[in-house]
Amino acid sequence: MKQKCILIFSVIIFFLSPPALQLRLSNRFHIKQMKKGRHINENGGKYKYEIKTFEVPVDHFSFAVKDKFNIRYLVNDTWQRENNAPIFFYTGNEGDIEVFAENTGFMWEIAPEFGATVIFAEHRYYGESMPFGNKSLIDPAHWGYLTSQQAIADYVDLIEHLRSDENKKHSPVIVFGGSYGGMLSSWMRMKYPHIVQGAIAASAPILQFTGVSSCESFARITTSSYRAACDTCPKLIQRSWNVITNVTSNDEGKKWLSENWKLCQPLTNSTHVEELQAFLEDVYGTIAMVNYPYETNFIVPLPPNPVKVFCNHLSNKSLTGKPLLTALYKALNVFTNYTGQTNCTDIENASGNLDALAWDYQACSEIFITICSDGVNDMFRSEPWDIKKISEDCLKKHGAHSYPYMVCKEYGCKDLSTATNIVFSNGLLDPWSGGGVLWNLSSSATAVIIPEGAHHIDLRGSNPRDPYSVILARKYHRYYIKQWIKQYKQQKKRILVT
Amino acid sequence: MKQKCILIFSVIIFFLSPPALQLRLSNRFHIKQMKKGRHINENGGKYKYEIKTFEVPVDHFSFAVKDKFNIRYLVNDTWQRENNAPIFFYTGNEGDIEVFAENTGFMWEIAPEFGATVIFAEHRYYGESMPFGNKSLIDPAHWGYLTSQQAIADYVDLIEHLRSDENKKHSPVIVFGGSYGGMLSSWMRMKYPHIVQGAIAASAPILQFTGVSSCESFARITTSSYRAACDTCPKLIQRSWNVITNVTSNDEGKKWLSENWKLCQPLTNSTHVEELQAFLEDVYGTIAMVNYPYETNFIVPLPPNPVKVFCNHLSNKSLTGKPLLTALYKALNVFTNYTGQTNCTDIENASGNLDALAWDYQACSEIFITICSDGVNDMFRSEPWDIKKISEDCLKKHGAHSYPYMVCKEYGCKDLSTATNIVFSNGLLDPWSGGGVLWNLSSSATAVIIPEGAHHIDLRGSNPRDPYSVILARKYHRYYIKQWIKQYKQQKKRILVT
Repeated sequence: MKQKCILIFSVIIFFLSPPALQLRLSNRFHIKQMKKGRHINENGGKYKYEIKTFEVPVDHFSFAVKDKFNIRYLVNDTWQRENNAPIFFYTGNEGDIEVFAENTGFMWEIAPEFGATVIFAEHRYYGESMPFGNKSLIDPAHWGYLTSQQAIADYVDLIEHLRSDENKKHSPVIVFGGSYGGMLSSWMRMKYPHIVQGAIAASAPILQFTGVSSCESFARITTSSYRAACDTCPKLIQRSWNVITNVTSNDEGKKWLSENWKLCQPLTNSTHVEELQAFLEDVYGTIAMVNYPYETNFIVPLPPNPVKVFCNHLSNKSLTGKPLLTALYKALNVFTNYTGQTNCTDIENASGNLDALAWDYQACSEIFITICSDGVNDMFRSEPWDIKKISEDCLKKHGAHSYPYMVCKEYGCKDLSTATNIVFSNGLLDPWSGGGVLWNLSSSATAVIIPEGAHHIDLRGSNPRDPYSVILARKYHRYYIKQWIKQYKQQKKRILVT
Repeated sequence: MKQKCILIFSVIIFFLSPPALQLRLSNRFHIKQMKKGRHINENGGKYKYEIKTFEVPVDHFSFAVKDKFNIRYLVNDTWQRENNAPIFFYTGNEGDIEVFAENTGFMWEIAPEFGATVIFAEHRYYGESMPFGNKSLIDPAHWGYLTSQQAIADYVDLIEHLRSDENKKHSPVIVFGGSYGGMLSSWMRMKYPHIVQGAIAASAPILQFTGVSSCESFARITTSSYRAACDTCPKLIQRSWNVITNVTSNDEGKKWLSENWKLCQPLTNSTHVEELQAFLEDVYGTIAMVNYPYETNFIVPLPPNPVKVFCNHLSNKSLTGKPLLTALYKALNVFTNYTGQTNCTDIENASGNLDALAWDYQACSEIFITICSDGVNDMFRSEPWDIKKISEDCLKKHGAHSYPYMVCKEYGCKDLSTATNIVFSNGLLDPWSGGGVLWNLSSSATAVIIPEGAHHIDLRGSNPRDPYSVILARKYHRYYIKQWIKQYKQQKKRILVT
């Protein structure tokens, strides 16, 4: 039972952290690697920026710890036409900030129109922004400063630094973020409305916490997405769990599956089988998250509408036994080998990856997202939400205590009625939308629903295959950003009389 | 020059911290002593409460420090008539919480009408709420967790604890505070609007920071208050500085002043003279702060309208030389010996007092209030505002760095337009009113001006001699508290559908 708990937990981490996933799988799937030591990006990326660093205190909230370190940030200042032009600031989340820059085309596309400076700030303990170098993640004394509040305080300091430039002294700052980055953006506006003037919080599941949202929404929405592609598909996936267990119940079966699925690490015991099943759950959730209508390379290289392509292989409802597993392998190849250049299927959990480790820690200490599956209304294995077990695992793995109610205490969940100048956007294809803000909180903290959208698709660059609802969402964002800037300029006129 | 800087700085501390002042002078002036080990107050105080403790983490904002400690709080739960009745919560400031309870009669008087539970929470590092026992104030590693944010987080945890009682699960919480306590109340509502439903922030100089308010307002308003009592009074005070310096320029003069002023510690060098002058400045400011129209015993025992009584001795404009000092001594006795039971005048800075030491640290690290005097438009000695010198002194004295812009960065100063459900009240007799919010920030974050009021007089219990403007202010508070409670109940109905 304990093992099972550990594995369902890894699903959570996997789901919410696309960049971590990307990095975890990067060697196998030839995803763009980080290049260290550069000052201008030269990797053929679509967007141009300088890479800079900024010194922040390890601890913003006490005077006991005096250590400082550098966070990395990307900057493009080429569009500023006049003094006090806007700053568009991406509040980095759990991964290398360059990956977010590459996959947040919306900011780059609208920056010239606004004459805005574009900033992408890297989250502490991720990418190259390590407080204690390679010791950052070795024990609680070092990684204990990995919290959302400290990260937000880093961004506040960086914004103050940017505004110390006389040309930007009164620049309105609009923060952007997707997923956990969107949570940070919205929280930042709530906590520091005097620092940031508005927030575009895309696919930010700020309500996906214990006692607020139901834990099964992720599994339910994912299943629904597969069902929409093909009614048979989730049924076969549901059926496959027992088939895998039965086939691999003896050595011959393990060998058969290892060979037929071209596993890099052959299955030799039940733990390996468990890991394989957890990997499949990760993949199903991830494909649903990035179910974009065009080819992408965000998490891994994927075809347009990957859920549909995946499910094309699982349309024969009579499939069972080894034929079902053979079909499932073909489907799986959509995710693991879209480029056709992968030699074997790697299900190994890249626990050595620092970004994955950092998020693993964060997700079981402070950002304690609630997730479960019942195996009946969804296509996943049954896994009830068990705070106690996850907490025990967190303590065992990281020496860290779990705080399931900390986020709601700190930022609010049920009562967000005082929030202002935030757009919460959610795509209904996105498994995380169940934990998002789907209704207007006030006249200026509003919800945008994108029926045909997956995980923060609206932050991506425009594409000819964008659904109309995404195009509309981006128009909505631009409208509100203009309003916030206008409002700030009016306020500033009054404030500057002092 | 360094010495002078140290002394003007001590004025700041002295001014903002009446309880610290009270404790500093307590041995001499027979002020009520803290009684340890009690569980019910039996000191003949006007108000009844239980004394309890509550465990909080030393560091709310990291997981690196695992220490915990108890803060003290006072509770009276005898008026709750129904479930989810309001909680009136005083956000303790720099001193023994029992002193604030005794001097915040307004909360006690209105609690029965609202059926409210009354809570007074003690600020960490003050009174008996010491994170590391008697080691709390020995070095930065220990006292580094003395910040407003950590204190507010303590209160948030305590409120969550109170609400864990099934009868209080949906109790609206109204926070109250005076002076620095009022700053905490207003900041708490700004940062945690989902936790506290409204704040009465009395005489809270949240704008008294570098670059926001002018530094000389305290000195100017104090002078104005003395001038209103008697036009000659501040002129003679202004004249007295040189007279003191001249008279004490030789040993005979020092002896004369020591004997005639009955100083407990005779003046034997120029540093003593400097200390005496700083003490006088402290006293002038303090009398202006507590210039209430009735007898009080908040800081020290004082007559009604103490500024007027003080100035009655300084009405002869021809006074100079020793006769001026003799008259000044008589005036000074209003403050130092109103009871007639003081044997000698004690000007010694009670640096050994822990509350004074804690505030001294806080006021030069985070709560870096700006204060100065020009000696021309005010009756004080000239002392320009010099961040560098004060910072150097803070580092020397406490090993602590100064952060003059931290408060405005953290809580906002110039742009508070998103604040809601706060009443900022300020008496125009109060020297701190120059740093208060004197205009409405929004339709629900409003300012109340009390023309005839001194430092947070509106939080005191009612008195037959209360000016009409104070009576009106209290009505205003009650009106808004009712509104906030009503608003919360309506919101709660909507929220509880989940």
